[in-house]
Amino acid sequence: MTERVVLAYSGGLDTSVAIPYLAEQTGAEVIAVAVDVGQGGEDLDAIRQRALDCGAAESEVIDARDEFAADYCLPAIRANALYMDRYPLVSALSRPLIVKHLVAAARRHGGTIVSHGCTGKGNDQVRFEVGLNALAPDLKIIAPARDFAWSRDKAIAFAEEKGLPIEVSAKSPYSIDQNLWGRAVETGFLEDIWNAPIEDLYSYTADPAQDRDADEIVITFDGGVPVAIDGETVTPYQAILELNRRAGAQGVGRLDMVEDRLVGIKSREVYEAPGAIALITAHQELEAVTVERDLARFKKSVDQRWGELVYDGLWFSPLKESLDAFIDDAQRHVSGEVRMILHGGRATVTGRRSEASLYDFGMATYDTGDTFDQSLAKGFVQLWGLPSRMASARDARVGGA
Amino acid sequence: MTERVVLAYSGGLDTSVAIPYLAEQTGAEVIAVAVDVGQGGEDLDAIRQRALDCGAAESEVIDARDEFAADYCLPAIRANALYMDRYPLVSALSRPLIVKHLVAAARRHGGTIVSHGCTGKGNDQVRFEVGLNALAPDLKIIAPARDFAWSRDKAIAFAEEKGLPIEVSAKSPYSIDQNLWGRAVETGFLEDIWNAPIEDLYSYTADPAQDRDADEIVITFDGGVPVAIDGETVTPYQAILELNRRAGAQGVGRLDMVEDRLVGIKSREVYEAPGAIALITAHQELEAVTVERDLARFKKSVDQRWGELVYDGLWFSPLKESLDAFIDDAQRHVSGEVRMILHGGRATVTGRRSEASLYDFGMATYDTGDTFDQSLAKGFVQLWGLPSRMASARDARVGGA
Amino acid sequence: MTERVVLAYSGGLDTSVAIPYLAEQTGAEVIAVAVDVGQGGEDLDAIRQRALDCGAAESEVIDARDEFAADYCLPAIRANALYMDRYPLVSALSRPLIVKHLVAAARRHGGTIVSHGCTGKGNDQVRFEVGLNALAPDLKIIAPARDFAWSRDKAIAFAEEKGLPIEVSAKSPYSIDQNLWGRAVETGFLEDIWNAPIEDLYSYTADPAQDRDADEIVITFDGGVPVAIDGETVTPYQAILELNRRAGAQGVGRLDMVEDRLVGIKSREVYEAPGAIALITAHQELEAVTVERDLARFKKSVDQRWGELVYDGLWFSPLKESLDAFIDDAQRHVSGEVRMILHGGRATVTGRRSEASLYDFGMATYDTGDTFDQSLAKGFVQLWGLPSRMASARDARVGGA
Amino acid sequence: MTERVVLAYSGGLDTSVAIPYLAEQTGAEVIAVAVDVGQGGEDLDAIRQRALDCGAAESEVIDARDEFAADYCLPAIRANALYMDRYPLVSALSRPLIVKHLVAAARRHGGTIVSHGCTGKGNDQVRFEVGLNALAPDLKIIAPARDFAWSRDKAIAFAEEKGLPIEVSAKSPYSIDQNLWGRAVETGFLEDIWNAPIEDLYSYTADPAQDRDADEIVITFDGGVPVAIDGETVTPYQAILELNRRAGAQGVGRLDMVEDRLVGIKSREVYEAPGAIALITAHQELEAVTVERDLARFKKSVDQRWGELVYDGLWFSPLKESLDAFIDDAQRHVSGEVRMILHGGRATVTGRRSEASLYDFGMATYDTGDTFDQSLAKGFVQLWGLPSRMASARDARVGGA
Repeated sequence: MTERVVLAYSGGLDTSVAIPYLAEQTGAEVIAVAVDVGQGGEDLDAIRQRALDCGAAESEVIDARDEFAADYCLPAIRANALYMDRYPLVSALSRPLIVKHLVAAARRHGGTIVSHGCTGKGNDQVRFEVGLNALAPDLKIIAPARDFAWSRDKAIAFAEEKGLPIEVSAKSPYSIDQNLWGRAVETGFLEDIWNAPIEDLYSYTADPAQDRDADEIVITFDGGVPVAIDGETVTPYQAILELNRRAGAQGVGRLDMVEDRLVGIKSREVYEAPGAIALITAHQELEAVTVERDLARFKKSVDQRWGELVYDGLWFSPLKESLDAFIDDAQRHVSGEVRMILHGGRATVTGRRSEASLYDFGMATYDTGDTFDQSLAKGFVQLWGLPSRMASARDARVGGA
Repeated sequence: MTERVVLAYSGGLDTSVAIPYLAEQTGAEVIAVAVDVGQGGEDLDAIRQRALDCGAAESEVIDARDEFAADYCLPAIRANALYMDRYPLVSALSRPLIVKHLVAAARRHGGTIVSHGCTGKGNDQVRFEVGLNALAPDLKIIAPARDFAWSRDKAIAFAEEKGLPIEVSAKSPYSIDQNLWGRAVETGFLEDIWNAPIEDLYSYTADPAQDRDADEIVITFDGGVPVAIDGETVTPYQAILELNRRAGAQGVGRLDMVEDRLVGIKSREVYEAPGAIALITAHQELEAVTVERDLARFKKSVDQRWGELVYDGLWFSPLKESLDAFIDDAQRHVSGEVRMILHGGRATVTGRRSEASLYDFGMATYDTGDTFDQSLAKGFVQLWGLPSRMASARDARVGGA
Repeated sequence: MTERVVLAYSGGLDTSVAIPYLAEQTGAEVIAVAVDVGQGGEDLDAIRQRALDCGAAESEVIDARDEFAADYCLPAIRANALYMDRYPLVSALSRPLIVKHLVAAARRHGGTIVSHGCTGKGNDQVRFEVGLNALAPDLKIIAPARDFAWSRDKAIAFAEEKGLPIEVSAKSPYSIDQNLWGRAVETGFLEDIWNAPIEDLYSYTADPAQDRDADEIVITFDGGVPVAIDGETVTPYQAILELNRRAGAQGVGRLDMVEDRLVGIKSREVYEAPGAIALITAHQELEAVTVERDLARFKKSVDQRWGELVYDGLWFSPLKESLDAFIDDAQRHVSGEVRMILHGGRATVTGRRSEASLYDFGMATYDTGDTFDQSLAKGFVQLWGLPSRMASARDARVGGA
Repeated sequence: MTERVVLAYSGGLDTSVAIPYLAEQTGAEVIAVAVDVGQGGEDLDAIRQRALDCGAAESEVIDARDEFAADYCLPAIRANALYMDRYPLVSALSRPLIVKHLVAAARRHGGTIVSHGCTGKGNDQVRFEVGLNALAPDLKIIAPARDFAWSRDKAIAFAEEKGLPIEVSAKSPYSIDQNLWGRAVETGFLEDIWNAPIEDLYSYTADPAQDRDADEIVITFDGGVPVAIDGETVTPYQAILELNRRAGAQGVGRLDMVEDRLVGIKSREVYEAPGAIALITAHQELEAVTVERDLARFKKSVDQRWGELVYDGLWFSPLKESLDAFIDDAQRHVSGEVRMILHGGRATVTGRRSEASLYDFGMATYDTGDTFDQSLAKGFVQLWGLPSRMASARDARVGGA
């Protein structure tokens, strides 16, 4: 009986090229599996058909948009997940979900091999393979692009030689990965990191310099989860979609950065993530109002580690689970409303209110109504500074400063 | 011989009220010391004279602008110091410098008491007193405003009753602290955290929504220090001044946040810090290019702790010194140029270049010239994911997931 | 109606002296509440009676030994809680439990004031009062010893003057706090930190230098909780009691250290905690076998923070709860057996086995049966070291080392 | 001209086998370089000669004992370097030093290849190759043992077949790595982690259960460096040697643990490190006396990361350098004397004194001479607990606990 290989299919250059390659190299039937994580733009039936046109034995498309929003994007909001303080983990979040569906498809179709189109110098190979090894260590993995060290040039040439029905041409050299949570663009001229991005790169966001009216929005959170926009109840998927639309229209969420890849090199990346940036901004401010200080300070190290782990392909890891347990507990009271102005590339919080607020007007005010007992402060200040004071006295004594 | 009390004098409501108070309460002569940390706006001679008009025995003004820029703001740039990821420590940075000059003035004038106008519910009392205790534990400290638990209302009434020459009136209720590094505004209606700031609050920044032309700027850093702007050599003071002017003109650096005070309460703060935000943004990006990954990841925890310590009044502490030693070492190669667009409230990096760059075109490119050996990746991925894989297998085996 | 004050009563010097003091100072009736946390040694009826003899209106003793073991000591095992890497938080763990029972007693007896005998320079005042403020902010707190800045000398004199039935005399100057989890001793001559402890200080542990036979023990854990000893099922209380007995007989768990108090000073402390040290040692080793590497590394920072929080009196804090959630998750697989030799002051692990082990003989062995694919290593090593390699090349290039 | 390969030669099984292998496989001349890091036990001339007997073209022995002590072991003391809280990095510390000398030898002898005998499943391959890549990226690396996936059995068979003059036989199956800082033993029966170590494994330490007299020692530190023992000035090398002798004679420093290797597996290791454990124990206690609390707490995370980096082969990394800068600063005042009792496997601190002590008798005492102002405590306690109190009130209000 012919072996079957399940391919993570995106419809793009790399994975389309992979179909005939895999068939040639392994003698196996290729099952193409495209997972809809909100990448949009292209008709899913067209993608499904393209795989067949490229030689796939079977081709299926899985609608995972709600699952992606609820189980992958929401945890990222709750963790304020910004790798290197900026990148909201667009591609990194989708990989473990795709892995999960690939494994399910392999079980359904009797596959014994799984394949992906990632190169050997990116992060995504790690995310795919570490996830696959965790969920289904029995499945063999093949990454044709990596195994032949193809450059993009060679891949384009091969696609043309084989007459594969893919859109990439010498004139459109962008490499794009996009989903509900955002969009990543790579292209040759950005590899000179002194070059500025050009307007043509962007698709999720309007030019922030364009003249338009500001958009005021109120986002309601419950336990760290956005549950309503301007008073209308929304699912996680709807919340992100709506924020992508409205924040994107105001040019919010463009990112241009040099980032540290897991494989040990630095790379230049341009991202757009209007919904992600707007939602995380609102969430951070609601945390500032509802999370106690010591917890907030420690949670920063938890959030940082969470982002690094997910970036580094370790979604299915014991540490990720324990960090999630911490975050779940810390989100219990992150409920309330945040009002933002979306305008000119900025997502600016202008108001916040919450039943669970730890902001206390009486304690904070300098006017009538002040309930803070200032007489307590003197003793606090003295003991707070006591270790420094004793150290300074010691330094003066022994001349060690 | 009459005792002498050295007062940290700002020219504002709290410290002007303090002059007659101190004289009454202690029977001592009051020496007013105003430290110019770039607060600008008001004539320093006028401030010096106001202290005398309020009853000070002596009054002096110290120009510490260059010192403030070089020894307090620069370390904050190098530490990317943003308390709660946002506040660039405007007031927190000036306090230890003022403390240093107060102590020097006390030694000069034979003072035995030092006084400041801070209330008992803010952070600044801590910063003053912990610093004073560290540098001069023999000096007695008096904080008249705190000791009588005055609200702002009472202070205004007292000032009017005494006929003190201060500008505050019932119609101008803003409480402002400003210096070279930024500006903080508090006022009654912002104590309802649902209320949005109004344009009238701002002084360092133009309205970001205003129509104007973008401003492109190139900042040169050497060892984490800004040394040139658009090719012109600048001192630290000049760099910050210039960035305040140009980024401020574009509406960069407005902040509206709920923050965790050291004394245990949350407060609402509005800040403007155009130069600080622009410089830290540029610095962070240059670090992304020149600092190795593991160092960059760990430095985030160092930077966070540095910001907390300085916010918490522990500038003169052993931990602060050791964190500085770490940061100094980590900045050795943070040299190069960053190009930014300042526009519409945004400070956007568009290019970076450095002799010390760790970005390697050959390693990063997907095109011709690729020098990355992709065959290494497979082994890396397998061993990188091995602990997770073994844990997943264990979870499956013992049913613990 | 007479007001009632509920006193945390230990039977010792400080709290016995407090009974007549409180009655005198407040005019209230004193309700003495002694909580049995396994301090042992003394008859609880005698303690109950002593309070009455000292003038208490009512006196009750609460047996909280099982609760202390299960809800306070077990979490400390799971967190490997050793403040400054050594002190197992003996007193710090009992305070929140006592606070809980004090509040319950205040509700039962109509108390409006709560009192404790702590001084103003120790940690326990903080633990009591922060806990009381969290659980019952309406209750007033009085700490008579602190409010009159009594030294131990004065307290003893007062006790003698009043004829209070307490055992302390000029010849027995030890200040002791002990419970199921351990024992703390302070005494004058130890305040010279160059002086060595003497054998007379110890009560829970035999002299480790004594000649005796080694004791081999097997401890079974389930989810981080000790559930059996030498195959016999035990409750948490029984586990700790048994380990105190057997490890104590071998001189395990003596500690002599200078520690950082929360109030800003360093103090000399001598502790005995045979059961705590033995159980934590066994637990750490079982974690080494069953917890994945990244999780283990991060958990160290969680464990450290947990210990600091509990030491610092913040048991009832949001961060403590979220850290507990992390730890709970991380303990899911900490199940199995640890064999130890208790002898000569040492608790030495000699074997460990677990269904949930991540140790894999096939992967680890260098002999026949090796299943580790060494060909993967080369690629791993190259990419693992790539960032350092590029940084070294950069340093050589720009001369920055 | 014949190519030359420089081999890191230990005199043991793996590297002796490597000599003929390398010659066969590469056609190059083998230059054997043995670095004396205090491994002792065997005559260095014998080792040098054995390499020649195994076919090396040249063979040299480098005395690096003082350098190892001063530049590698001392930093480990200052970092309290204990991987997983236990292992003092015995092998991990020697590898970068050996790498440094290998590179120097390659330059001296015109070598273009460097070789080591490590397998592909251990940590040492990483330490060698990451170090070599950092210092000399032009040198090619060959690891014959790893490249042929030899098990120990096969290596022994090969050695016997070739008649190599090495001591290993079927009856002596221990694999040992030892140096001045300690000794590591691996052997087949320990790969069952339930098996206890046997006395026969140990060489640096006497049986701790043996009857002998206690040994009291006073160690003087200056800036974190041991400079005298019992009043006699010592070099770092002498200090470690002396402590190995005296602590070893008392059975101090035996370790038996399951540890997380960098390559992703857990392994069982038995170590002896009497001097390392005694010196680090003394150093930690002197830090407790002389290092301020906040610095001490943060230094724990620095120390942990330092140990992980060195264990993970990243000695020559930017983060390691910046951590060293932190530690150097933090050690400025770690000067004074520590008195210890070495006995029965225990290294117990019994006294400490220091000009730079932060312990203040007046502040700490409960007797006459107390200078601590207890009236300050009330305010401190109230504000310290304020965030928790407000969070508890919030939890009660919204029912979130």
